[in-house]
Amino acid sequence: MELLKQRILKDGTVKPGNIVKVDNFLNHQVDIQLFNEMGKEFKRLFADEPITKIITIEASGIGVACIAAQYFNVPVVYAKKAQSVNIDGDVYTCKVESFTHKRVYDVILSKKFLHPEDHVLLIDDFLANGCALLGLVEIVKSAGASIAGAGIVIEKAFQDGGKKVREQGIRVESLARIKSMSEDSLTFI
Amino acid sequence: MELLKQRILKDGTVKPGNIVKVDNFLNHQVDIQLFNEMGKEFKRLFADEPITKIITIEASGIGVACIAAQYFNVPVVYAKKAQSVNIDGDVYTCKVESFTHKRVYDVILSKKFLHPEDHVLLIDDFLANGCALLGLVEIVKSAGASIAGAGIVIEKAFQDGGKKVREQGIRVESLARIKSMSEDSLTFI
Repeated sequence: MELLKQRILKDGTVKPGNIVKVDNFLNHQVDIQLFNEMGKEFKRLFADEPITKIITIEASGIGVACIAAQYFNVPVVYAKKAQSVNIDGDVYTCKVESFTHKRVYDVILSKKFLHPEDHVLLIDDFLANGCALLGLVEIVKSAGASIAGAGIVIEKAFQDGGKKVREQGIRVESLARIKSMSEDSLTFI
Repeated sequence: MELLKQRILKDGTVKPGNIVKVDNFLNHQVDIQLFNEMGKEFKRLFADEPITKIITIEASGIGVACIAAQYFNVPVVYAKKAQSVNIDGDVYTCKVESFTHKRVYDVILSKKFLHPEDHVLLIDDFLANGCALLGLVEIVKSAGASIAGAGIVIEKAFQDGGKKVREQGIRVESLARIKSMSEDSLTFI
């Protein structure tokens, strides 16, 4: 998606540790107009899929998923990190290692909100080592639901998350795929 | 907001510890159509304010804020809980005690995204003891920005958060104000 790539080149900065910082439009400050364009693009890409639900993971996936959901006219369910006293015991769980935060989370999703007849679009802001996305895939499979695919905003294609998810036969559509990056340059596939 | 009140009566359940569980439309599964109606209502309530930015706090405020932001045509900035390696050192911070999670968080917001000329609408899903909202107020004041008010989805009016925030001269508009609740009944103001 050209608009997004241009925005990454304009406003993104590369930090040590293979971090691309896009906090002025994606995951701290949110450019809602850009999010709407991303939502339309996800709808265009998955227009042929009878999607019933969008699933994402808190926190930075929520905004992307909610705006995109307007174009699919389906609810969003966001998986939560760590046990909350506000969640029933009856949950799907998986463990997810955060690339950014260098720790392992328990991720939970209430069984009330995911059923075998659901056809799910997974949405997240980043795909790097794939841990979060593979966790969501595991949860959807536990529920016996089907997966239309994954819609990702930025894929770090030089890490192996995308490969691991695609090897499971899951369609991954990333709006920007970063081929390589350093402090001086960032290139897309 | 009648639509929201009816939804709370229909789908909300009251749990021990003064918790009203609305996870099937507000803070785990998200009803995007309802969120759009809430966004329109916030715009109607704050139509006279020259708002430049919506500020919320992760995670459950993000969806409400992003959908509402479409009606104000402004960016959202969401304050983050706990230090992230992805955030610069140059941040506003405050401490927030979570009513739901029974713990204290450090909340941070990058100084890049909040300036003295900003006129801010604060948005959150719940107002109970007011800790999260007072933390956001403190952050906005640290930046020297002005506050148009706070848009809250559900206020537990039998707790003192709303009173504390209004006593600071801040306009609080809650779409549903719960007067009292027990396992058998829930009433609104």
